[in-house]
Amino acid sequence: MNKTNAHFEKDSENRLWFTETLEIDSGRAFKLEVEEILVPPFETKFQEICLVRTKSHGRMLILDGAIQCTEKDESGYQEMISHPALYSHSDPRQVLVVGGGDGGVVREVTKHSCVQKIDLVEIDEEVVNFSRKHLSTLASKLDDPRVRIYNFDGSEFIKHSKNYDVIIVDTSDPYGPATPLFSEEFFKDARAALTEKGIFVMQGESMHYHLPLIAGVQKRIKNCFDRVQYYHTQVSSYPSGTIGFNIAAKDGRDVSEPLAERIEEMPEDLRYYTPAMHRASFALPAGVKRDLEMMLER
Amino acid sequence: MNKTNAHFEKDSENRLWFTETLEIDSGRAFKLEVEEILVPPFETKFQEICLVRTKSHGRMLILDGAIQCTEKDESGYQEMISHPALYSHSDPRQVLVVGGGDGGVVREVTKHSCVQKIDLVEIDEEVVNFSRKHLSTLASKLDDPRVRIYNFDGSEFIKHSKNYDVIIVDTSDPYGPATPLFSEEFFKDARAALTEKGIFVMQGESMHYHLPLIAGVQKRIKNCFDRVQYYHTQVSSYPSGTIGFNIAAKDGRDVSEPLAERIEEMPEDLRYYTPAMHRASFALPAGVKRDLEMMLER
Repeated sequence: MNKTNAHFEKDSENRLWFTETLEIDSGRAFKLEVEEILVPPFETKFQEICLVRTKSHGRMLILDGAIQCTEKDESGYQEMISHPALYSHSDPRQVLVVGGGDGGVVREVTKHSCVQKIDLVEIDEEVVNFSRKHLSTLASKLDDPRVRIYNFDGSEFIKHSKNYDVIIVDTSDPYGPATPLFSEEFFKDARAALTEKGIFVMQGESMHYHLPLIAGVQKRIKNCFDRVQYYHTQVSSYPSGTIGFNIAAKDGRDVSEPLAERIEEMPEDLRYYTPAMHRASFALPAGVKRDLEMMLER
Repeated sequence: MNKTNAHFEKDSENRLWFTETLEIDSGRAFKLEVEEILVPPFETKFQEICLVRTKSHGRMLILDGAIQCTEKDESGYQEMISHPALYSHSDPRQVLVVGGGDGGVVREVTKHSCVQKIDLVEIDEEVVNFSRKHLSTLASKLDDPRVRIYNFDGSEFIKHSKNYDVIIVDTSDPYGPATPLFSEEFFKDARAALTEKGIFVMQGESMHYHLPLIAGVQKRIKNCFDRVQYYHTQVSSYPSGTIGFNIAAKDGRDVSEPLAERIEEMPEDLRYYTPAMHRASFALPAGVKRDLEMMLER
């Protein structure tokens, strides 16, 4: 069944719109006007891929009917899933990216000259090929000599992995192919694959819409790590306009502050991350903090 | 002409939806499922008012077809337009609220026991009456003995005002009745109405969608104040999920840090504001900071 076509409709003035309706966001939806369907929906072994050009957000990648990224605001996601972990580690050399086949996270990781090896484990080879062909701003560093690409199930790959300084898990929502990446077993394996000062970070949904889900994931991470922290970024095309991340250092240290020596030389082309944004992103609204603590105690 | 009814439509499963399409947000829209139209659209002298109950965001007030506030996320707006100014002033006694007839800002200001007088200047008397009747959580403090309500044009009222320690301008978008509240003349009058350490703050649109508009307003404020700062909050039902504020102290001081002595006693019922959120809200994404500075230099 085609999952994406049902999301397109024309309005009375013959303008085409894409409407995102998600199972986890019942009762609300975000719509973008589509100027052109660049690649009509097609099935890979794992999911459905579609690419459109929107009026207000540039090119937009759609996976299984869900907005994956847009040119306008992808930096808020790609930079913020990557740099807080990388700037909290004194010398990240080996980095594992799970998911993220579009190449956006890899692009950010290559900005750290200390990084020597970047392993990208993307279950769906066709996402990588698609991104190389159609999303060149995201895929621009997939041919960096430090990058190796493995088309593997991340939850299997990680069982045979070790010595990573940073592990970044760039998943879609916890349904379908991404489900194992939200399991306690995966978190245990991830911890084992980290060096002693290693840092684990993963996509963590919206604190405004999905707090019970976040609390559930944090409980499982806390069974494997001494401490887990939640921080957030703004992405206008995601539900509620924000998305967060769960982050945990293997030695249990606080990672809400970038390391001074690491941010001495910042790349000039960042569009979202700054050391101040790093700090700021760990501050939570009073009610979110209170409710999350309550849910974690239950 | 009825502006709001055009935003309602039923889907194929007979569910009713409200879709917000705004002139300043061409090409994108936010939709909420409506369980009940509590008060169908009606015209006041100044605007069209409508109240619905949504599936995911509770009660929602709609003015002229634009989402004004929802029960679910109004605290992110009401608290963040109010408390950063109030906690940056050592002893705010007299407060002027321009707009904000729903009473949400007044509710927040009453949480400061040092405040002795709150003048609410709302051009549309019917918004106040409507809120008292239908939005009791917002209007809950309109009968506080410190509150006086004036149904006046704020841009006229302010010409005859003085000695306010804090002025909060809670406007709709810079179209229709709110237009004069974005003018340089209004900012000049506001400055004159402030005490020497007084603080001015106003609704400032989204940094992700409306940066040229923000730069234009900041230029006009800077012609009247030594310094203007932008900070932001998250409101899931607003375009891009965020909205910001322009804030300026009459003596030109930095207000990105709450005063330590003022936050010793914080009310317990806050849902968004914390001292950490105050600081965090002034951090801007790298690209926003860069682009705004560039626009201001032009």
